[in-house]
Amino acid sequence: MPDPRRRQITGFSNPTVKYLRSLREKKHRKAAGKFLAEGLRLLTDARECGRVPEMLVMAEKRDPHPLLAALEAAVLDSGGEVIETSTDILSKITGKDNPQAVAGVFAEFDTSLAALDRSRSNIWLVAQALRDPGNLGTMLRTGDAVGAGGLILIDDCADPFGVEAVRASMGAVFTQAIAQARWEEFLPWLRAETGQLVAASLRDAVPYRGAPYAAPCFILVGNESQGLPEEYELASDLRVTMPMRGRADSLNAAVAAAVLAYEVLATLPATD
Amino acid sequence: MPDPRRRQITGFSNPTVKYLRSLREKKHRKAAGKFLAEGLRLLTDARECGRVPEMLVMAEKRDPHPLLAALEAAVLDSGGEVIETSTDILSKITGKDNPQAVAGVFAEFDTSLAALDRSRSNIWLVAQALRDPGNLGTMLRTGDAVGAGGLILIDDCADPFGVEAVRASMGAVFTQAIAQARWEEFLPWLRAETGQLVAASLRDAVPYRGAPYAAPCFILVGNESQGLPEEYELASDLRVTMPMRGRADSLNAAVAAAVLAYEVLATLPATD
Repeated sequence: MPDPRRRQITGFSNPTVKYLRSLREKKHRKAAGKFLAEGLRLLTDARECGRVPEMLVMAEKRDPHPLLAALEAAVLDSGGEVIETSTDILSKITGKDNPQAVAGVFAEFDTSLAALDRSRSNIWLVAQALRDPGNLGTMLRTGDAVGAGGLILIDDCADPFGVEAVRASMGAVFTQAIAQARWEEFLPWLRAETGQLVAASLRDAVPYRGAPYAAPCFILVGNESQGLPEEYELASDLRVTMPMRGRADSLNAAVAAAVLAYEVLATLPATD
Repeated sequence: MPDPRRRQITGFSNPTVKYLRSLREKKHRKAAGKFLAEGLRLLTDARECGRVPEMLVMAEKRDPHPLLAALEAAVLDSGGEVIETSTDILSKITGKDNPQAVAGVFAEFDTSLAALDRSRSNIWLVAQALRDPGNLGTMLRTGDAVGAGGLILIDDCADPFGVEAVRASMGAVFTQAIAQARWEEFLPWLRAETGQLVAASLRDAVPYRGAPYAAPCFILVGNESQGLPEEYELASDLRVTMPMRGRADSLNAAVAAAVLAYEVLATLPATD
């Protein structure tokens, strides 16, 4: 008897194909509360963090791989569904010419501030109006590397569950906590407990190197082209600046966050 | 009498439109020896660095702007050509729905190692098989910020003259020297004079913080997914590693280069 949790899909017009493709668009992701992650490595990272996709999609013709077998087993064990399809259809779902052989559908996480466990780490990254999904994913990846608790997205940022952000995070979307909030919500939440807000700034700032960082430290970077609103900088406990020896007056937002995060990591009392 | 160096283009099939569009593809850029840069800010940065486009393309219907007027004058003064066209055609050239109102064509620079002036700075960035044009542009931007001499691209990297790399560089493509070389050429060039090669590494490496950096310091980062070949690391004078507190074993390549470059900047004898 065929396992009802395994299906083969052969037609481009199949509703599941349409559903999977729709998850490349933010409005459909939000409506479904789901997102796509692609690639065996990313899905294995997710599994090892206890995040198993609800639906796993892979090519019919594929080389056997122990990690893929482990993933399949985990999906079926947790009551999920495994779908096999042609490489053409898989390409159409992933939007890539040369698709990695597997994609998974996950439920979006709770991204409220209330869901964050502030005791998790002494370092947090905060981005304001970050528009580029690659920068967003890179910040998640950096957060994982420095042992940050997570990434807090202030105001209108790129969607952390978009395919490009998930890909750039290199799996950190599954290890870092993620919250989304307006500034008006974030500031009272921050001030309700101990926490130092450190703004990457060009105004009235001290050198970032050896600045008096204090745990837990919330590292705030602004929008790619506008930087931080002045009001946000003035509400910060510390404004720090990095040397700018050339013509440019700013760094890439994800780069600025990383340089600051590594400085904070090196100078804060050990968190382990 | 009309100025022959000013032209209006009204048809999509105009050969100049085809030529400009073709510059979005690497093979056509290489054949022509030219590249495109877009946006008033970028082109103004270029002009202020003494790089004036050979050809300037802008929308017929545009708001007057003193920087645009300055750019137009500079192009005409240097014997270049100014082209006005419709916003539709401009969109087709730039490949963007909402094109910035101006694009320029530049001659590609000499990217031979021999053209580099090593005395220019104590910090140089070196990338090996860097595939992502956004990462490449971000490295140029970081190089500008730390006062690096330039970026040396080893083996098969993304094209520094591609539109995406130029854009991500935020003008640093015009301020940083750029060289392209095979490893077999690079190593003898490096060793012909004083220079410390520092590899971002996971193998047999010392902590990046406070490592014995020496000027001129060449900071080497590897391919986004493979990292550096072992042989390249072993040929380096110093292998340094950054803390990895999470699940990931690596940083984004442009982020790793930036964290290292700022550490080197802070610890090397001042270069000014």
